[in-house]
Amino acid sequence: MDRRLPAADRAPVSRTSRPGGGLTRRSALGLAAGALAAPALAASPGGADTLRGTGALGVVVERATGSLVIVDQIARAAIGRVTELGDLSHASVVYSPDQRFAYVFGRDGGLSKVDILTGAIAARVIQSGNAIGGAISDDGRLVAVSNYEPGGVRVFDAETLAPVADIPTGSKTIGLVDAPGRRFVFSLWDAGETWIADFASSAPAITRIEGMGKNPYDALITGDGRRYITGLFGEDGLTALDLWESPPAPRRILSGYGRGEEPLPVYKMPHLEGWALAGERFVLPAIGRHEVLWVDARSLEEVGRTATHGQPVFAVARPGGRQVWVNFAHPLNDTVQVIDSASGEVVHTLNPGPAVLHMEFTARGHEVWVSVRDAGRVDVYDTGTFEKRAEIAAESPSGIFFTARAHRMGL
Amino acid sequence: MDRRLPAADRAPVSRTSRPGGGLTRRSALGLAAGALAAPALAASPGGADTLRGTGALGVVVERATGSLVIVDQIARAAIGRVTELGDLSHASVVYSPDQRFAYVFGRDGGLSKVDILTGAIAARVIQSGNAIGGAISDDGRLVAVSNYEPGGVRVFDAETLAPVADIPTGSKTIGLVDAPGRRFVFSLWDAGETWIADFASSAPAITRIEGMGKNPYDALITGDGRRYITGLFGEDGLTALDLWESPPAPRRILSGYGRGEEPLPVYKMPHLEGWALAGERFVLPAIGRHEVLWVDARSLEEVGRTATHGQPVFAVARPGGRQVWVNFAHPLNDTVQVIDSASGEVVHTLNPGPAVLHMEFTARGHEVWVSVRDAGRVDVYDTGTFEKRAEIAAESPSGIFFTARAHRMGL
Repeated sequence: MDRRLPAADRAPVSRTSRPGGGLTRRSALGLAAGALAAPALAASPGGADTLRGTGALGVVVERATGSLVIVDQIARAAIGRVTELGDLSHASVVYSPDQRFAYVFGRDGGLSKVDILTGAIAARVIQSGNAIGGAISDDGRLVAVSNYEPGGVRVFDAETLAPVADIPTGSKTIGLVDAPGRRFVFSLWDAGETWIADFASSAPAITRIEGMGKNPYDALITGDGRRYITGLFGEDGLTALDLWESPPAPRRILSGYGRGEEPLPVYKMPHLEGWALAGERFVLPAIGRHEVLWVDARSLEEVGRTATHGQPVFAVARPGGRQVWVNFAHPLNDTVQVIDSASGEVVHTLNPGPAVLHMEFTARGHEVWVSVRDAGRVDVYDTGTFEKRAEIAAESPSGIFFTARAHRMGL
Repeated sequence: MDRRLPAADRAPVSRTSRPGGGLTRRSALGLAAGALAAPALAASPGGADTLRGTGALGVVVERATGSLVIVDQIARAAIGRVTELGDLSHASVVYSPDQRFAYVFGRDGGLSKVDILTGAIAARVIQSGNAIGGAISDDGRLVAVSNYEPGGVRVFDAETLAPVADIPTGSKTIGLVDAPGRRFVFSLWDAGETWIADFASSAPAITRIEGMGKNPYDALITGDGRRYITGLFGEDGLTALDLWESPPAPRRILSGYGRGEEPLPVYKMPHLEGWALAGERFVLPAIGRHEVLWVDARSLEEVGRTATHGQPVFAVARPGGRQVWVNFAHPLNDTVQVIDSASGEVVHTLNPGPAVLHMEFTARGHEVWVSVRDAGRVDVYDTGTFEKRAEIAAESPSGIFFTARAHRMGL
């Protein structure tokens, strides 16, 4: 794909530069809540004291520089930057219910609470050596982080980031999501188990579900918080739990869903985060094939496939589910395809540029933001006409996270 | 039910006092955007300049006094009041995408844009003599109002409330909702038609769908923006449209869903606004019976009924659909019941007090706010334990509208 990339489009970014490294060490020495200086907002219109609603804000992860760009969906513009957030490769973000604070989960175990109104880091802890993802409880009071090293899940007070609970699992822990009723659900890579940690009371009650399958590598929860589904690295198929059951019994589904043909690293597997619900079907990326799969949302059985440009990484439904937008793995990652949910046909192909890493829709789906990492840009498209509405500069942008996520489950 | 009501619980409110009347006349003379003085925020913590997120705010309609209480879900408290909004009986509210501005649709044709950060009325117009409900387009640029008198739909610029389009219908117009793609959908009481107004281009394109049935009195759109369903006053059953079809063909469903046994006024019919999606079924109030109906979400056929305490008015799913909360018509309107979605059984009965008019869940459903009009209170319940967490004073509270609605379709 690099052939198609004019040299002038390349952003002058060094992939090895990680200015957050120093911060990481300082924080590990005990500088936690409130101890860090607030970086100035670059290009903040009206200054940090501007009264504004937070419903149409968001952040874009700049993975190479350990920073975030704060964005405004209505202005289609960057309004600030927050730096010194550590290693943000594979970083993810959740929001407080008031949509003022972004909790940023770094790969280096850093957990940062960022005030997107002022650009300040309100609190920051290094809670492990190597983490993968986090979640916030439905009441917004608890933030949980899933750890590779030393494994387990750690839970923090969302206000202060003070530790609340430590749940050792004796395993790399993956697929952490929130579920209704102040619960977190996660899976154990080594043990093939899923655990439900229920924080309705002060001490968490743990439900252990065995027999999930060999080496769960990722998981998702459906948008209604009901079904938890794990991908398996060690065997074909997926395992589903119905969280409305008590206790839920594991059920194997999609036996034709092959395991990866390559050994680790796990991140080469397609992302399971949030299957797209499109009408009566989920759509999900096939593994190692140029296809997406359609799965009946009730039976969880495969009901069709659509051939795509490359190996899908994310298949994301436009809110309402009328269309599904798909991006692809290297080296076909300069392209995005749009699939009609009713017919299952590709109706449009876009070529945003080199290394399309993520797509995020506005809350009601009229526009979609696309990060084009190696062009140093986030592009905004009209989902009706497919016209590009804006380009926003960013350093090696990866994940895009809008504040509307605060109001959804399992993100 | 008044037997159960201690006199001391009655709020000292005159139902005929409408301080907004004077304002109404002034506005009709041409005082529109920005021309009105901002009422001071009563009991605003930190003052009107307080920097705060808007994701967990909301408003409560005080119908007797033509005012709104601005509330904070996290503090479980009122943080301000906005007065002089005219006749707010049957008022409804939608939000700008940034969740800063509430658009308030009054019964007297008043359309007010309220800044919930400052408590100011940012703009106000009297756009007709008698209106019923409104909607905001998915891009947040257009606000539409459905009118009884003189009928039709009027569309306004969401920024300024300047008129954008006037769509005469020759009929009382009801059931106005937004749909994906900058569209509004509404129905004609007199003509038995549904119209789709598509504002993707500057001039609206109108699609007229005839044969919807006799005297549609209300309508809803499902949460995915796909199915539009009208209630019929003049015949049994409902009519459904699949907006994924082009053009959609009307389909009669639920032939056992009886028309009202009483003539007008229409507002005695149960509210169709937003059927609750609970797992694989919708739940909706029966007409004139002490029952809710369960309807298969795919076939739209009735699949069961649950006996309830009274005639249901609203059946609202807790986000995620695990439970459904139901309130009831006079004289049994002091009670709320909670139905388990899986079993269809009533699992809890609450007695909040006289005249429970509305229920609104926090975005991820951990709490629910209940307006108890004749007690002059809004109560906050934990949805897990059913314990009351807070009481908030309000003058004859009716509708409760949280800002998370900005991010949902068809509200």
